[in-house]
Amino acid sequence: MKILFIGFGNVAKEMARIFTERKLYPALDISPEVIGIFTKRHGGLENSSGICLDTVLTELRQNDRLTADERELSPLTPLEAAEKLDYDVLVELSSLSISGKGEPAVSHIRAALKRGKSVASANKGPVGFHYRELRDLAEENGALYLFESAVMDGAPVFNFCRRCMKGATITGFSGILNGTTNFILSHMEKGGSLEEGIKLAQEAGIAEADPSMDIDGWDPAAKTAALANVLMDSDITPLDVAREGIRSVTPEMAQEAVKRGMRLKLICRGSREGNTVRASVEVEEVSREDIFCLVSHYGSALRIESDLMNPNTIVQECPDLLDTAYGVIEDLITIRDHLDTHSRLPLK
Amino acid sequence: MKILFIGFGNVAKEMARIFTERKLYPALDISPEVIGIFTKRHGGLENSSGICLDTVLTELRQNDRLTADERELSPLTPLEAAEKLDYDVLVELSSLSISGKGEPAVSHIRAALKRGKSVASANKGPVGFHYRELRDLAEENGALYLFESAVMDGAPVFNFCRRCMKGATITGFSGILNGTTNFILSHMEKGGSLEEGIKLAQEAGIAEADPSMDIDGWDPAAKTAALANVLMDSDITPLDVAREGIRSVTPEMAQEAVKRGMRLKLICRGSREGNTVRASVEVEEVSREDIFCLVSHYGSALRIESDLMNPNTIVQECPDLLDTAYGVIEDLITIRDHLDTHSRLPLK
Repeated sequence: MKILFIGFGNVAKEMARIFTERKLYPALDISPEVIGIFTKRHGGLENSSGICLDTVLTELRQNDRLTADERELSPLTPLEAAEKLDYDVLVELSSLSISGKGEPAVSHIRAALKRGKSVASANKGPVGFHYRELRDLAEENGALYLFESAVMDGAPVFNFCRRCMKGATITGFSGILNGTTNFILSHMEKGGSLEEGIKLAQEAGIAEADPSMDIDGWDPAAKTAALANVLMDSDITPLDVAREGIRSVTPEMAQEAVKRGMRLKLICRGSREGNTVRASVEVEEVSREDIFCLVSHYGSALRIESDLMNPNTIVQECPDLLDTAYGVIEDLITIRDHLDTHSRLPLK
Repeated sequence: MKILFIGFGNVAKEMARIFTERKLYPALDISPEVIGIFTKRHGGLENSSGICLDTVLTELRQNDRLTADERELSPLTPLEAAEKLDYDVLVELSSLSISGKGEPAVSHIRAALKRGKSVASANKGPVGFHYRELRDLAEENGALYLFESAVMDGAPVFNFCRRCMKGATITGFSGILNGTTNFILSHMEKGGSLEEGIKLAQEAGIAEADPSMDIDGWDPAAKTAALANVLMDSDITPLDVAREGIRSVTPEMAQEAVKRGMRLKLICRGSREGNTVRASVEVEEVSREDIFCLVSHYGSALRIESDLMNPNTIVQECPDLLDTAYGVIEDLITIRDHLDTHSRLPLK
């Protein structure tokens, strides 16, 4: 399976580590061949006979560059790479853009799907802003568009609903979906300030590059729109989500809630209202009896409501890069199986 | 899809209700035709042109019998029905037997699989005692043996691991898997006795018919063996599980734990020890920071550990018969899809 990476930050590096240390994971039977790596900061690499991930990791760590071998350097832009290179799967890992309505990732994904190439992406922007178009484009071209890591890292959220709830209709969801704000709210309960909380989350490598994505609720709004679109057949964008951030929360407010036996949490919700879906991200007081109350630090949780089951909640207590990287790899395994089935079909 | 029911208690009745009220569930696209119903207490029915479930539900409710139509009554035993009738799927819903090592359900399931008929079962006995044999028998005969409702009712536990964690190896699990003992322990925290707790659980229709299955930990031990066998490729039986029940717990012990900020919970565990799996069911003190602490009443939870993800926990807060019935129906949808694919293959 030939892979093109667009974006090669922490998640991609963790994927590369897993691939190079595959012997540690006895059930991981995937053999990716990376033919291109395109980044915003380090330019692009292409090698149709396969790029050595071990070398790339070493070069990035030691010399802050992708390669020492100039023959691998590519003159293409990421979009041109998606349009022109010979690959089976695009792994799209650029970061969330609200002002660009999911761009430039949307264009990369569109370019791949139009060519019948499948896409695995951890970016919540394209699925939040353009799910229907990309889903239909994938279907028309016999490709898959997968994004398990876009919400709750690699914890199976989309797959839980799509693979394990056949015949059921999702009627609503609620969750804590942004680790940074959850961490900051916990930090405020101990008297810490918003600014300190942001700094600590950035040092831990958890905060989005632009703090406003977390603090103003854009990241959870994009995730909420993604869940509403995929699980509840809605057609909204992150801009349609009733959105509240945590800027107006003070340490005093967080501490007073604790005194009353409650905790302040940034809660994402989706619910049916007639033929539409109401989606929101709002600071709520959560009682000590609610599972959401026990989601601390960078944890996350999603409660799923349906017509054929009482609510089930998936809780991810201490996610790190491993989870996000694995979510994309799980998508790659699904794509590998899809390619295998497809190539075994008789020609028309 | 022609269905044979063996066992027609509360779960089967709830399945029948869902089927007869299918219009309430817009995504439920399954058309079962029930050709046989065999019970311990009411004898058996067979009708190759389909039994009217609405009539059976009414007859059971009003007259405590399966039918008023004597032509539908069958002289067959349940085992003979599994061996002789013309059906596509056996729905096995008889109750757990430890002394019989999963019998008579195991014989019913074996008879179906040998004939290439798939099986959906909520019974944890056969999967706890004979998983490998039944799995291999199913595979050899091109059939499916599914049992999602055997653990945590219909909450996707087996399917979560099998369908949503491709490439990962399960390294351990822990959970609260028996609603009755969880309810009784919560009741004891309020000063109630074991006997009262059993009575209340029986009145709520939650307790196993034989209280010892719950109180002495046999039901959670069967579930623990099932999880170890299916998820961790173990080959143990419920008799191999280090098992503790709740008979030795007093209301005073439960209340003292609460005073210390803890709760007593009956915790099921599976973990790797070299090449074997250690499985246990034991009363443990759980801290207020642990999600398990918030599992009250008849709720359940399972924490899944793997090599490629940090732990994920699935929490089912308030399960009832709907969940168990849906779990079996989800299995039936998988079997329907399997039959469809199978029948579309060209003949050899």
